[in-house]
Amino acid sequence: MQKIKDYVSANTDRFLAELFELLRFPSVSADPKYKEDVIKTAAFVAQKLQDAGADQVEVCETAGYPIVYGEKLIDPKLPTVLVYGHYDVQPADPLELWDTPPFEPTVRDGKIYARGAADDKGQFYMHVKAFEYMMSEQELPCNIKFMIEGEEEVGSSNLGTFVKENKERLSADVIVISDTAMISLEQPSIETGLRGLSYVEVEVTGPNRDLHSGVYGGAVANPATILSKMIASLHDENNHIAIPGFYDDVIELSDAERKALNEAPFDVEEYKADLGINEIWGEAGYSSIERAGTRPTLEVNGLWGGYIGEGAKTVLPSKAFAKISMRLVPNQNSTRITELFQSHFEGIAPKYVKVKVTPHHGGEPVVTPTDSIAYKAAEKALHETFGKMPIPTRGGGSIPIVALFEKELGIKTVLLGFGLDSDNLHSPNEKYGIDNYLKGIETIPLFHKYFTELSK
Amino acid sequence: MQKIKDYVSANTDRFLAELFELLRFPSVSADPKYKEDVIKTAAFVAQKLQDAGADQVEVCETAGYPIVYGEKLIDPKLPTVLVYGHYDVQPADPLELWDTPPFEPTVRDGKIYARGAADDKGQFYMHVKAFEYMMSEQELPCNIKFMIEGEEEVGSSNLGTFVKENKERLSADVIVISDTAMISLEQPSIETGLRGLSYVEVEVTGPNRDLHSGVYGGAVANPATILSKMIASLHDENNHIAIPGFYDDVIELSDAERKALNEAPFDVEEYKADLGINEIWGEAGYSSIERAGTRPTLEVNGLWGGYIGEGAKTVLPSKAFAKISMRLVPNQNSTRITELFQSHFEGIAPKYVKVKVTPHHGGEPVVTPTDSIAYKAAEKALHETFGKMPIPTRGGGSIPIVALFEKELGIKTVLLGFGLDSDNLHSPNEKYGIDNYLKGIETIPLFHKYFTELSK
Repeated sequence: MQKIKDYVSANTDRFLAELFELLRFPSVSADPKYKEDVIKTAAFVAQKLQDAGADQVEVCETAGYPIVYGEKLIDPKLPTVLVYGHYDVQPADPLELWDTPPFEPTVRDGKIYARGAADDKGQFYMHVKAFEYMMSEQELPCNIKFMIEGEEEVGSSNLGTFVKENKERLSADVIVISDTAMISLEQPSIETGLRGLSYVEVEVTGPNRDLHSGVYGGAVANPATILSKMIASLHDENNHIAIPGFYDDVIELSDAERKALNEAPFDVEEYKADLGINEIWGEAGYSSIERAGTRPTLEVNGLWGGYIGEGAKTVLPSKAFAKISMRLVPNQNSTRITELFQSHFEGIAPKYVKVKVTPHHGGEPVVTPTDSIAYKAAEKALHETFGKMPIPTRGGGSIPIVALFEKELGIKTVLLGFGLDSDNLHSPNEKYGIDNYLKGIETIPLFHKYFTELSK
Repeated sequence: MQKIKDYVSANTDRFLAELFELLRFPSVSADPKYKEDVIKTAAFVAQKLQDAGADQVEVCETAGYPIVYGEKLIDPKLPTVLVYGHYDVQPADPLELWDTPPFEPTVRDGKIYARGAADDKGQFYMHVKAFEYMMSEQELPCNIKFMIEGEEEVGSSNLGTFVKENKERLSADVIVISDTAMISLEQPSIETGLRGLSYVEVEVTGPNRDLHSGVYGGAVANPATILSKMIASLHDENNHIAIPGFYDDVIELSDAERKALNEAPFDVEEYKADLGINEIWGEAGYSSIERAGTRPTLEVNGLWGGYIGEGAKTVLPSKAFAKISMRLVPNQNSTRITELFQSHFEGIAPKYVKVKVTPHHGGEPVVTPTDSIAYKAAEKALHETFGKMPIPTRGGGSIPIVALFEKELGIKTVLLGFGLDSDNLHSPNEKYGIDNYLKGIETIPLFHKYFTELSK
């Protein structure tokens, strides 16, 4: 559709400038020291929704960080699309690995480098700009609502309450989220499944103080060694997760489903070269695509204990810690998995140490339908913008609120993601392609158009 | 000997005030940010030796931190005692576990709480004050030399060169070191063996960047998990160290030696209560005393990788690290053990990761003779001060330079230590008993007296 293309090219510089402004806020929800910045980001988002033409714009207070709401209701007889996104970002460390400052967006080779560029500022802001276009050009075909939160990276702890208390205000026919990846600009795709998450922190305590490893070493159990042994036992020799009952609720994919998934282009040599690894790894009996998208996993996200400073300290540490997260697949339940982990981990603790398991947060896995009006509208819109039919994929990431929305609001979600797996989400040098950003803005009005038409 | 007792009680307040001044220097040799403080400490020590009456006092520059030298040569025909000590200290972290600031000495229940109180500032400074007494009261019975270094806690990297280049200046009949523990003030003891040390740092690298654990988890090997498995494999089910050849050079103690060692008072319930542990741990077939004093050990001193900050970050880390030290017993060689560790650790690395082993420092184990003049003099001196015959013990700690001195200077060492195992060396709330400090000052002149007499 030429009109939107023209509008985007006429406004490219401003669209980028506004996104850069948004990316300069260090809205790290995990780290209390950024509290003020996170709150400022919410105000900025609200202002931009207002400017684009939204009504009832409100920075809704919660027990944690606020949720920004805005809407444009043009006709109760028309369908309503609820746009969800998040303005908070992952921590930027390790800072020393960034080529340019994480909160000073920099363009290299047509990519915007900044924390949050793809996850999720660059992606939800496409919707704000697409909305601006539809408003200014009288192209808005349906009712639209925005809900942009600030705690997605820390488990959306307060979104559940907000949704429960605002069912009326949030009522819609579909939820659209751009917070996932497509295969490439040449091969658009739509994620149709997301993994759930169970995130825990474990603490292993040995002696009541750090000890001199010469005086006590060999005679007192070392919690760092014990924690290592406990972590080592969590995967068996086939890299299956060795927690009793962990796989009980997993529904194996049909051969047809597996075949379809494995038809997505995947070049193992490119994959290894991109990551700088000699060998891929994973659960025996599954392909890399299946391991990352359709199988539950257990990963150590952080590990620490004893002396980790400069030089050498001969200490037998009092405590050792790990942050461990498990990705869950459809039909697994995060509460149950967290309980299974906790009882197993406490159960394998040797008598020499005390073990504490603290659940951080969780989220439920989902599968989104491929036969829905919303999916077909997304397919049509992507096809038109990219000139190629998108294929369905299974995403390894987790957007726990998709399950929440379905449960609380009874609304299905379509994952209209424009990122790439190589965008370094949660890593140093996170990036988002300028083309991905602009093509996203072009695609979104088409989605609204076709969703409205197909809903008739 | 009443005269020294009187001198000590007359000067107790000053002796404590001077030690406190010394303890206020944060002379942490492991951490570059304390460089200036370490150098200031050397100057302070030199000044105090000068004040006490030493000649040729010099702050000797090295490639690292300086070595403070001083001497009093009264008669070439008399024996010469070389006093060794170190003015550098271990890092103080974890700071939050100190009840009072580590570099602001505080007295509670007759104990001086400060980093370095026992290791080794409080102990080497006893020699400076005992020397002051012998000088001011014309009681110095022999020649005396002082060598106080500033890199003991980081492996005495530059002491070897200094010793090689100063053999003449350092020539002596015995070396006396107060940097070890005795059983108690009621049961004096003399350490007759020290373990050697091999300290390495390992780095396990997986992907070339931190990855999103949702996008890549389950499909790429996690270096934190791999490191855990590798560490877990370093001890077998009997807690023997599972590095081929590790025990080859270990000489088993005779039943008589084991019997003698195990006669030292040891109350396992007290031991567990003091450390707050439910169970003791260690190599099958050995007592706690043997495990800590006579058996080689392998301990994880530090462990880290991934996200260790506040909250949750779903990252698959690029790297994981560990600081690992091995304590060695007589006849083991630190260079050989370091090589064994390195080749074994690299050998067990799975193909998914790259492993780097960096040797930090090492030191050789030693056994000091119990039939020497120096040992007998120490025995006699302790007997007189404490009213009880000291018993020989095997220390678990390492003072690598003891082996160095024997090799380079051909001089044996006597370990005249006045600390206690419960002094929290290398831990928060390090302490040193005021009685230990004062009784040490009383004992040292007696050691010089008897050593000179027995040498005739």
